[in-house]
Amino acid sequence: MGKKPSSPVTDLPEWLSLKKHTPVINRKNRHLKYLITEKGRLENFSLNGAGIFYDFSRQRVDAKTMSLLLNLAEARKIKKQFKEMTEVKKVNNTEKREALHTASRSFSNEPLLINGKDVMPDFTSVRKKIKEFASGIHTGEIKGSTGKTFEHIVVIGIGGSYLGPEFVASALKHLALKKMKIHFLSNVDINNFGEIASVIDPESTLWIVISKSYTTSETTANTNQAYEFMMRKGLDPAKHFATVTSKGSPGDDPSNPVVASFHMFDFIGGRYSVTSAVGGVPLALYLGYDVFERFLKGAEEMDIHAKETPPGANLPLVAALISVWNNNFLRYPAQAIIPYSSPLSKLAPHIQQLNMESNGKYVTCDGMPLGVPAGTIIFGEPGTNAQHSFFQLAHQGRPFPIDFIGVINPCYEQYKSISKGVTNHQELWANLIAQPAALAAGKDDADTAKYFPGNRPSSTILLEDLSPENIGRLLSFYEAKTVYEAFIWSINPFDQFGVELGKKLASGIRSKMAEKNKNPDYSFKDADPVTGFYLEKLFKGYKK
Amino acid sequence: MGKKPSSPVTDLPEWLSLKKHTPVINRKNRHLKYLITEKGRLENFSLNGAGIFYDFSRQRVDAKTMSLLLNLAEARKIKKQFKEMTEVKKVNNTEKREALHTASRSFSNEPLLINGKDVMPDFTSVRKKIKEFASGIHTGEIKGSTGKTFEHIVVIGIGGSYLGPEFVASALKHLALKKMKIHFLSNVDINNFGEIASVIDPESTLWIVISKSYTTSETTANTNQAYEFMMRKGLDPAKHFATVTSKGSPGDDPSNPVVASFHMFDFIGGRYSVTSAVGGVPLALYLGYDVFERFLKGAEEMDIHAKETPPGANLPLVAALISVWNNNFLRYPAQAIIPYSSPLSKLAPHIQQLNMESNGKYVTCDGMPLGVPAGTIIFGEPGTNAQHSFFQLAHQGRPFPIDFIGVINPCYEQYKSISKGVTNHQELWANLIAQPAALAAGKDDADTAKYFPGNRPSSTILLEDLSPENIGRLLSFYEAKTVYEAFIWSINPFDQFGVELGKKLASGIRSKMAEKNKNPDYSFKDADPVTGFYLEKLFKGYKK
Repeated sequence: MGKKPSSPVTDLPEWLSLKKHTPVINRKNRHLKYLITEKGRLENFSLNGAGIFYDFSRQRVDAKTMSLLLNLAEARKIKKQFKEMTEVKKVNNTEKREALHTASRSFSNEPLLINGKDVMPDFTSVRKKIKEFASGIHTGEIKGSTGKTFEHIVVIGIGGSYLGPEFVASALKHLALKKMKIHFLSNVDINNFGEIASVIDPESTLWIVISKSYTTSETTANTNQAYEFMMRKGLDPAKHFATVTSKGSPGDDPSNPVVASFHMFDFIGGRYSVTSAVGGVPLALYLGYDVFERFLKGAEEMDIHAKETPPGANLPLVAALISVWNNNFLRYPAQAIIPYSSPLSKLAPHIQQLNMESNGKYVTCDGMPLGVPAGTIIFGEPGTNAQHSFFQLAHQGRPFPIDFIGVINPCYEQYKSISKGVTNHQELWANLIAQPAALAAGKDDADTAKYFPGNRPSSTILLEDLSPENIGRLLSFYEAKTVYEAFIWSINPFDQFGVELGKKLASGIRSKMAEKNKNPDYSFKDADPVTGFYLEKLFKGYKK
Repeated sequence: MGKKPSSPVTDLPEWLSLKKHTPVINRKNRHLKYLITEKGRLENFSLNGAGIFYDFSRQRVDAKTMSLLLNLAEARKIKKQFKEMTEVKKVNNTEKREALHTASRSFSNEPLLINGKDVMPDFTSVRKKIKEFASGIHTGEIKGSTGKTFEHIVVIGIGGSYLGPEFVASALKHLALKKMKIHFLSNVDINNFGEIASVIDPESTLWIVISKSYTTSETTANTNQAYEFMMRKGLDPAKHFATVTSKGSPGDDPSNPVVASFHMFDFIGGRYSVTSAVGGVPLALYLGYDVFERFLKGAEEMDIHAKETPPGANLPLVAALISVWNNNFLRYPAQAIIPYSSPLSKLAPHIQQLNMESNGKYVTCDGMPLGVPAGTIIFGEPGTNAQHSFFQLAHQGRPFPIDFIGVINPCYEQYKSISKGVTNHQELWANLIAQPAALAAGKDDADTAKYFPGNRPSSTILLEDLSPENIGRLLSFYEAKTVYEAFIWSINPFDQFGVELGKKLASGIRSKMAEKNKNPDYSFKDADPVTGFYLEKLFKGYKK
């Protein structure tokens, strides 16, 4: 991360030792069916920390693997890098910025100086403003333009301004304030707007526009639809829109009055921003400010664990090492996240962005090709649904590591019908317990169509319940795991230049469309043939 | 598929020719940035058929690749296999059954004889019964136990009894009958039941239980919850439940009266069943029978295309060949499905099951290990959302082929605000056109962090609009593609033994839970230590 290139990770003796160790783990006698029966396996390959239980006893690792992985962590000084990240080092080196998402949920009194200025008061004052705003909305002090209280929140935002808040809102839906409904308007597809427009009551709707630059095309387009929609209903947009954006952006312009405007900071990237005002405004309105603060405190607890706990007992650090082991040594290209909990159904899409956008990189911080793949394909659906969908491939086809997530205490305890002797929640757990065991052990069968190779690795993560604190802990666990992976590879998990080329090409195509809209005689013949073909398809096929 | 083993596909000269050809395509001069600029590229590498446009010009194939792939198709006689499938051959050889999903949407008058009996009248009579039932519900002739008309449909089913109907219901939501609302109760997680229970009006709710065997644990557990819930509300379940199940199953037992019971047949597997009564009952109630029938006719049109059209012009056949090429020769382990259309957001989860459960197999129909991976990891989210989530990895990290799907005519045409000179729908298309081009061409940059390797393959599939016919065509396209892939490998895409081991282990764990429920002193000490540990976690941690 300094000026002269550090060694590529693949040249380190610690990496080479792991490479040498890989064929040992690939031996038949290290099949998971043997590893899991070793004495003390569960005790030795599981961790408790910051309220989360993490069982990696069904990963394809032995004591030596873990020791070699921890050597690698030591050689890369990843704990030091994590600490430096939290202490205002410009770890986002390509954009010359800090990465201070952990500060957005810190309740510590320690100052955090950027160019000599303490930024902690900025966080405190944004939180205070959110708290007051939520209170104003909930008491009815802040009303819509016709005097109705707000009951519908529509969050307009995409990517990091959408996936995190949606995950937390759905995970904590059981705590939602009775009269508040939340909607997410992310996709520029007009269907997304049309569906929301058809279910809200405009007079009691607050639109929250979330965009750091306030120039994201999709968000601008949706904001304009919403703005005109409200105008046509005779409602004053100034009383129905709030913004979360950078200080001084077009969304923070006093000549465009809004109900309230909240600041986001350039030292927190979109995909790490759910604990900032990006999540804070919608979640405090939907769940109440206190629930949002409890969520932050859970995240803070895991941050402290991630920063302070020695590597061998550090949940996200160990999880990151296992992830790199699975990716680069055992060569699994994908990883599934399977929560046995319907309210966590949006966890996989959120972590999909968090991890794939952070670590889907080609070069190290020094600009050198990494040489091995960073990042992994993340996907997932809740269990047991996933068992009835794609687990066939997991068991008998192409193997991929899985994070199983269990929640000990369910919501909706009033429904206790018994089937086959158990409650629904117990049925869920019977499967949560069975699947990792079946994947690991496999089963011989003379009928080869019924043969299970086994040796499919997985971890199991347990939460006590779906409390705001636990959702904060889980979120921070995956954020810390993601950056720990990046620190091992020495890639920058905070930029996303890979999305720029598509944006640039789209911009050129948009200009041609705009020309054609103005002038129906405009021809696409100066476009490249393929672009021209698709533009014709759209303009000719479109039945007005 | 006969008694003596046929040649493994990997031994065929046609396979070996493809293997020999692979390094040619991997050469620098066959980078997609060159291939796409060849004269006539789009015309030569795209197809129109059954109302769908399929552009594979951005796949990493040249004329020779296609010709070698078509030789492989010929050698495996896959068109013949497809025809035999539709003509009652027992292609599901391990379970000794036919696979007649195409018959469920056939409006042909040709008889289809199984053991001398024509089964076509069975399909006709089920459809007639669905039509009459839907009419009875919609006119209010069939009412709930307190005399209210039905407005809420809750579909209780999992896997194939859930994903297909959910995909079609959300794709055609714009055509839903005004007063009808549909809910899907799939996961056994009590949260899933609790959320639905909190939004329905029980008096106007019809529960549709879909289960071939009527013994699926999750479905049974949810049905029991729903049954007790209705009883506690003082409502007669006999007036509020309908079933879709096999003839003579516990769900088709006259001693358990229901509003109506519809038959499903053992020659249609769950993941292929959305055009049978499995989709028919909920979709006809939600959308009207006529919409359901139009959906069937679209599927039938693509079935006929898939069966009759010569290989080189056959959309699903060509798509299957490209899929195998990407999987086994270019070695992409995953494939994304990215519809630029929010209503198609459930397409990827449905195809995830359809393809991964069908083709995630270890052995051929002869019971021999296949030797190369069958099946691929399918995942996806709608565009442009996906661009702001995981496309970073697609552009600069680990490459994976993508199916882009575009819809020429949007719904909600009343919303026409202009941003940056274009409508929302045009903005969507600017991105749909830009992304495949950016992925294919890449971009050089002296700053390596901004370097795009390109050479990322994709296809683009266009539909005219979200009509029922087009959703039927799209569904049948992916079904036919899936079975064509299987026919190349000579695996059985209709069984799913890989899900059995987990079920069996869960059953043993469930018994222990049931014992403990009956007798609090029951100890888990005879369970294996890991199972015992998790059972203790659940029973001790559970705050009553």
